[in-house]
Amino acid sequence: MTHKNWWLDATAPLSASARGNAQAHQDQLTKPQGSLGRLESIAIELAAMQNTSKPQIKQPHMLVFAGDHGVVTQGVSAFPQSVTIAMLANFVNGGAAVATSCKQQGIQLSVINCGTAANCEHLTQITHKPIMAGTHDFSEQAAMSNEQALAALSLGKEQAERAHQQGCDFLMLGEMGIGNTSAASCLSALLLEQDVSDLTGPGTGVEGAALTRKKEILTASVARAKLLVKNPLDALAQVGGLEIAAIAAAYIRASQLGMPCFVDGFITTAAALLAVKLNPGVRQWLLFAHHSAECGHSALLSALDAEPLLQLGMRLGEGSGAAVAYATVQQALTIHNNMATFAQAAVENKA
Amino acid sequence: MTHKNWWLDATAPLSASARGNAQAHQDQLTKPQGSLGRLESIAIELAAMQNTSKPQIKQPHMLVFAGDHGVVTQGVSAFPQSVTIAMLANFVNGGAAVATSCKQQGIQLSVINCGTAANCEHLTQITHKPIMAGTHDFSEQAAMSNEQALAALSLGKEQAERAHQQGCDFLMLGEMGIGNTSAASCLSALLLEQDVSDLTGPGTGVEGAALTRKKEILTASVARAKLLVKNPLDALAQVGGLEIAAIAAAYIRASQLGMPCFVDGFITTAAALLAVKLNPGVRQWLLFAHHSAECGHSALLSALDAEPLLQLGMRLGEGSGAAVAYATVQQALTIHNNMATFAQAAVENKA
Repeated sequence: MTHKNWWLDATAPLSASARGNAQAHQDQLTKPQGSLGRLESIAIELAAMQNTSKPQIKQPHMLVFAGDHGVVTQGVSAFPQSVTIAMLANFVNGGAAVATSCKQQGIQLSVINCGTAANCEHLTQITHKPIMAGTHDFSEQAAMSNEQALAALSLGKEQAERAHQQGCDFLMLGEMGIGNTSAASCLSALLLEQDVSDLTGPGTGVEGAALTRKKEILTASVARAKLLVKNPLDALAQVGGLEIAAIAAAYIRASQLGMPCFVDGFITTAAALLAVKLNPGVRQWLLFAHHSAECGHSALLSALDAEPLLQLGMRLGEGSGAAVAYATVQQALTIHNNMATFAQAAVENKA
Repeated sequence: MTHKNWWLDATAPLSASARGNAQAHQDQLTKPQGSLGRLESIAIELAAMQNTSKPQIKQPHMLVFAGDHGVVTQGVSAFPQSVTIAMLANFVNGGAAVATSCKQQGIQLSVINCGTAANCEHLTQITHKPIMAGTHDFSEQAAMSNEQALAALSLGKEQAERAHQQGCDFLMLGEMGIGNTSAASCLSALLLEQDVSDLTGPGTGVEGAALTRKKEILTASVARAKLLVKNPLDALAQVGGLEIAAIAAAYIRASQLGMPCFVDGFITTAAALLAVKLNPGVRQWLLFAHHSAECGHSALLSALDAEPLLQLGMRLGEGSGAAVAYATVQQALTIHNNMATFAQAAVENKA
């Protein structure tokens, strides 16, 4: 049973002593101190999250939330709306980037339908929990009602709890939804109080005059919505989307349950910002996978004081960047847990 | 039998048609074109190297070359010279960073002694081929004779051939040698005709007054050597090191044999620059793993027109950055080879 304002509940504490012990362990490994750079810091943060000096990830889980966006009728996307459902089939059939990466690394992949425009219940490997048949066109009206926003948050909360019950110890979140860079740009603009055109990029490949038009539509949409937004939940209801709501809620619930989260690209970082605005304690449970090439990601990362692990020029979404960067996290843990200390290896340390 | 000037022999050709086919394949995968960023380009370059549109790495091999440096008597390193041999034991015992990463990923690891100051033949898992008992102090005299430089090159050539004969299809090179950032800085300064103090950093942790002193010694060393250097081989003989020579030769021989090479950090990139100066055809067989935090790496990368895959703030050497980045290369190949095309997945492409 979800109680009212559940997202305000305290997040789990991190262990300062485990962090200190992990740092002390790193400093005894046979290498100059700090010479493994980000590999050291990510192992140490995971140590603080897992309350152990030797963190391990045994059951990584990728939850991909999907939803459609009414604003695509305004021509803001390079791909037709039908691609949302076609890609959901591609996820469960193993042909999408995120699916190939998850399979190769033993990452459990679950796909959750938060509300596609057309029915796709024939895809039986997907968890179908549609809130509505895609959001309304936010250039004309609120993307969803407050009740629908709360329902989408509850869905994300429940799915994070389900993953946790199944033993997940490292949560990755991904998304699918034609039009969702538009929603993420508008949500970011409302949460950061920045000009949406500075946060709007090509998404899946909108260029030239079409990109100019996308920026005009989003600018007008934010101007419309802004008058009605008093808090982060209002912003979510005004511009959506359903999958962004679910992802934000999953970050929050994971943080309350003490489950480390690995944030992917632009869309999921917008959801992460929403989560942190709703509950600042969430921030310390977030690790950031990669710096997306999508315009707008830098501003979100800056607002969250986040430095992603990788910069590969990826801009695909789906959770694909998190899945790819997971391989580097495993490298960090392998090295942290298996290197010899100066004493063990009888190597003389720096004077 | 090594013939005279073997390093001038032509490098193997890359396949433009395989590159084109791999690019065409990428453009049909179910994602916006280019949205996988560097993952796409590295898969496509490997396709050109392997002459197939679906490149695979089945037998990665890491060769770590080790040698000592006489210049350490001038106090240019934070660690004592005995650490070279202690770390060689740590490599073969599995406790060093590069060893843990190689083991976890099934990368074959071989360690070759090119010339340590003390005898270490009790380490029976190492291939012992010492040219001399460490180089001479290059602040006072040439690090090695021309004959010794040629012998070190031959050693690297032979080891690359041995790896190739064993079936290696992806060659990584690493190094160990207390003092070798000093040698690499001086070699880079001579090859690039730049001020060595701009190419000199802390190495394993030389800071403050000791770093100032390191720069002074290297500046004087380069001033001494420069008068005697007419070509890249002269530069190698003047400042060393033995392991740098072997690594440069291994890059050259691998390029002649058509074996893709993955370049690690500062030391190995200095060796790569030497290799390319000796034979420009080598450049196209080099992929770059990571951008080291060591001062001087940026200038080398710029001279080689190279953009490394990762930027993790690593500065450990050993080949550790290449081993860690290998996980990302495997992600690139997994995605390239296993994603569905638009036609296979019945996903509508961009208009």
